[in-house]
Amino acid sequence: MPEEFIQSRQNPRVKSLMKLRDRAGRRKLGLFIVEGLRELSRGVKGAHIEEIYFCPEFFKSPKHSAFIEEMRSENSISLCRLSEGAFEKVSNREGCDGLMGFARQWGSSLSDICLPSSKASTILIADAVEKPGNLGALMRSADALGADAMILTNSVSDIFNPAVVRASQGALFSLQIAESSVSEASEWLKQSGIKSFGAHLKADKFIWQCDFSNKSVAIVVGSEKDGLGSDWEAKLDERVKIPMFGMSDSMNVNVAAALCMYEVLRSRSL
Amino acid sequence: MPEEFIQSRQNPRVKSLMKLRDRAGRRKLGLFIVEGLRELSRGVKGAHIEEIYFCPEFFKSPKHSAFIEEMRSENSISLCRLSEGAFEKVSNREGCDGLMGFARQWGSSLSDICLPSSKASTILIADAVEKPGNLGALMRSADALGADAMILTNSVSDIFNPAVVRASQGALFSLQIAESSVSEASEWLKQSGIKSFGAHLKADKFIWQCDFSNKSVAIVVGSEKDGLGSDWEAKLDERVKIPMFGMSDSMNVNVAAALCMYEVLRSRSL
Repeated sequence: MPEEFIQSRQNPRVKSLMKLRDRAGRRKLGLFIVEGLRELSRGVKGAHIEEIYFCPEFFKSPKHSAFIEEMRSENSISLCRLSEGAFEKVSNREGCDGLMGFARQWGSSLSDICLPSSKASTILIADAVEKPGNLGALMRSADALGADAMILTNSVSDIFNPAVVRASQGALFSLQIAESSVSEASEWLKQSGIKSFGAHLKADKFIWQCDFSNKSVAIVVGSEKDGLGSDWEAKLDERVKIPMFGMSDSMNVNVAAALCMYEVLRSRSL
Repeated sequence: MPEEFIQSRQNPRVKSLMKLRDRAGRRKLGLFIVEGLRELSRGVKGAHIEEIYFCPEFFKSPKHSAFIEEMRSENSISLCRLSEGAFEKVSNREGCDGLMGFARQWGSSLSDICLPSSKASTILIADAVEKPGNLGALMRSADALGADAMILTNSVSDIFNPAVVRASQGALFSLQIAESSVSEASEWLKQSGIKSFGAHLKADKFIWQCDFSNKSVAIVVGSEKDGLGSDWEAKLDERVKIPMFGMSDSMNVNVAAALCMYEVLRSRSL
C-alpha cells in the first residue's frame, strides 16, 4: 500500500482526525481514535483498526518501529506518517508515543452477546458509571478477571471516548460490551438464566458468603457517587456487601467490581 | 479568630499557597495543600489542618457552607476567605468546590508504625509505584480493606502531592504510612514477625491457596510497568499469583493490591 507523509497541520486528514476528539464527531463518522502502542496492537489483533498514523520522532522504544515494520509487511492496513507538528496536533496524550489509528465503531446490543454453553458465565454490569477512566478500568478488570461480557446501563460515557480506550488498555477490543436499559438488561438476565448480585453497602451478606459456583452470575456495580440506583435494586436477585474499614464511605467502583469478580473465580476454583 | 478576606491574586498568602504546588516548595515549607470538602474534613478530623481557605461562590452543596460554619464555631483553625480570582489561582482542580487548606507534613519512618498486639496485622507495601493517582488509590484501598499500615519502598512520588491526597480521598490522614528502603522494610518485617507475600505473575500459588489466617502478613505490590523489583523478590517469604484472563499482561496495581488484601480479610473471617 502506498504510504503518505503528511507534514502540514492543516492537511484535511489531520482535520478529520481532529473531529474524532469529540463525541458528536465520532458518532457522525462512526469512527474513533486509538492511541498508543498497546491499545493499537490490541485493536489490530481484533481486526478493528482501519488506518494507522505514526511519527517516528516520538517513538519510545524499538517495539514501536517493529510494530510499524510488521504493519508494513502485512500490508493490510493503510499507514500514514505524520510530521511532529501534525502528530502533536491530533494526539490526545501528554507524552504521546507516536502511534495512533482509528477504528470503526460497532453496535453493542444485548442480542449480540454470545455466552459459552459449556461453563458458567460471568457478566459485569456497570450502572451509571460517569468517569471515562473508571469505565475503561472496569473493562480492563472484567477482561483480566475472566468476565464474558460487560453491560452498561444508564450509560453516561461514550465507550469510544479516548479516555475509555486508554484506561481499558485495549480490553475494549476483546470484551463483549452491550448498552441497554435496566429493564432490558434485567429481562435478558432472566431469559439467560443468570442470577444478579448487586454490590451494596447495606447488604446483609459478604461476597465470600455467596455461592457463585456452577451458576452464571452478573455482578452489578453502581455509580461512583451514588452506588446502585433504585431501578437496579428492585430487580436484583441478591445484594452483597464488600467488607469496609477505615474512614471510607465508599470503595472505588473498579475495586468493588474486581473484588466481586475475583470472588466468583475463587468460588468456581474450589 | 479574626477572618481575613483576600481579594487580590497577588496577595502574599496566595503566593505562599502557590509555592505548595511543587515538591520543592512543599518540602521547604514542610506543608502541603488539601483541597475539597471530603479530604479537608478528614484532615480536620485527624487534626492535621492548620489553615482553611474558602470561596463560597464555588461551594457545590449546603454541606460546604455547613463545614465552614462548623469550623467557625469550633474556632480552632484559622479561616480565610478568598475571592473567586484568588481561589481559582491557587486551586489545583478543574471544577473546584471552594474549599482548601494546608497541613503540616509529618515524618514517616518504620519505627513510628504501631501495630495492634491483639490481632494479626495487615501491611501493604508499595514498591516503586510511580503515578501519584495510583499511590493515592492504594492508600484508599488499604484504608478501606483494613490494612494497619502502608510502607513505600523505592518511593518515587511525594505522598504529599495534591494528586495523592485527592486519590486517597483523605485516607492519607488515617492510614499509618512509612517510607523506607527494601532492606530496612524487609528487616522490620522479620523483627515484627510479619510474613511477606509478593504479587507476582509467575508465582505457583493463587492467592486463595495461601493461608493468611491468624498471622500477620505484608502484601507487596510492584510498579505499574515492571511489577515487583528483583530486590524485593529475593526477600519475599512467598510469591502469590492473581488469576488473570483475557488479553491483559498486567493488572492495575490498585486492583492487585485490593484483591490480596481482600483475600487476607476473607481468610481471617472463616
